[in-house]
Amino acid sequence: MNYPGGIKKNIITIKDINKDNINYKNRGMNLEEDLNITNRYYKDQGIAYIYKKPTPIKVVKANFENGKRVITEAYYSEPSTTDYNGIYKGNYIDYEAKETKNKNNFPLSNIHKHQIEHIRNIVKEKGICFLIIRFTSLNKTYLLKGIDLLDFIDKNQKSSIPFNYIEEKGYQIKEKYLKRLDYLEIIDKIWRKL
Amino acid sequence: MNYPGGIKKNIITIKDINKDNINYKNRGMNLEEDLNITNRYYKDQGIAYIYKKPTPIKVVKANFENGKRVITEAYYSEPSTTDYNGIYKGNYIDYEAKETKNKNNFPLSNIHKHQIEHIRNIVKEKGICFLIIRFTSLNKTYLLKGIDLLDFIDKNQKSSIPFNYIEEKGYQIKEKYLKRLDYLEIIDKIWRKL
Repeated sequence: MNYPGGIKKNIITIKDINKDNINYKNRGMNLEEDLNITNRYYKDQGIAYIYKKPTPIKVVKANFENGKRVITEAYYSEPSTTDYNGIYKGNYIDYEAKETKNKNNFPLSNIHKHQIEHIRNIVKEKGICFLIIRFTSLNKTYLLKGIDLLDFIDKNQKSSIPFNYIEEKGYQIKEKYLKRLDYLEIIDKIWRKL
Repeated sequence: MNYPGGIKKNIITIKDINKDNINYKNRGMNLEEDLNITNRYYKDQGIAYIYKKPTPIKVVKANFENGKRVITEAYYSEPSTTDYNGIYKGNYIDYEAKETKNKNNFPLSNIHKHQIEHIRNIVKEKGICFLIIRFTSLNKTYLLKGIDLLDFIDKNQKSSIPFNYIEEKGYQIKEKYLKRLDYLEIIDKIWRKL
């Protein structure tokens, strides 16, 4: 941001960050909002308990002020797990939610290397694991099983997943009123052991 | 910390914080270390996938420096969930690990109100949920089921759980060599559905 007199303002507040999100990640906020509403509904109805994990932050420096620890230098770490996890019918459930403006593919740069490892570990231990991908330009949201994500990555040396693959292997999540994005309806159908 | 000339140093680095932990929370570091070793063993052997969640931090201010977001003011939030969770035989597993120097009781101030709510939600949804409590002065570590913690809280207006209650209702975790604190051995015995 440039100010009169050439002074460059580089201090931003959380309000600015949120504003920033509204400008650049509008649909992302909506997907998160939709999932929060859905998960609150699941919890209130005793259907499932699924929650968002804290954002990983690496603390470098901290002060003591009035007996309270204030962090004065820290950085957002690359996520080593996914955003959401919890319990559904006693089972471990875990997913990452992402959106893209692309119409023809989902860029794999959205999923970090450590997150792929995390998904691999969950699949291995028989947890319920998937991605929720929203194509904002198409206004369509899909559930893609973790195993189908891994299968694509292991068999292809590509930087993105074609929309066709997601449409074929994935399951479209219909938007509803109370259960905004009722992804458990799909889980009921496709996870045999439930 | 007071320095010669009366200058008060209140800037501490992570190295200092770790040093601080060694001085004041020695046993706590050991319990965490023991659990990390145990969980790594479980993971490597394909027994279970259990990991530590990120510490919740509330970010207040952030700068941009060389295109990177640097957090310049943040605070440790009160935890709303537990420290560890993961999958064991497909089931959701979740626990909080705490240690006390007390010999006769475990102070409930160690467990925050939101964490109690979290435990309640897990028990309701049939997840495997417990506390791991180490009595450092007695050199004994116990597993106490979430339901027994809730039962105590709901029936008593006390600020701590007597050691007797934990000894009676809980299960002592024996220290081993590779599986340092083999708490899953206890879970196998007490969780009927496994």
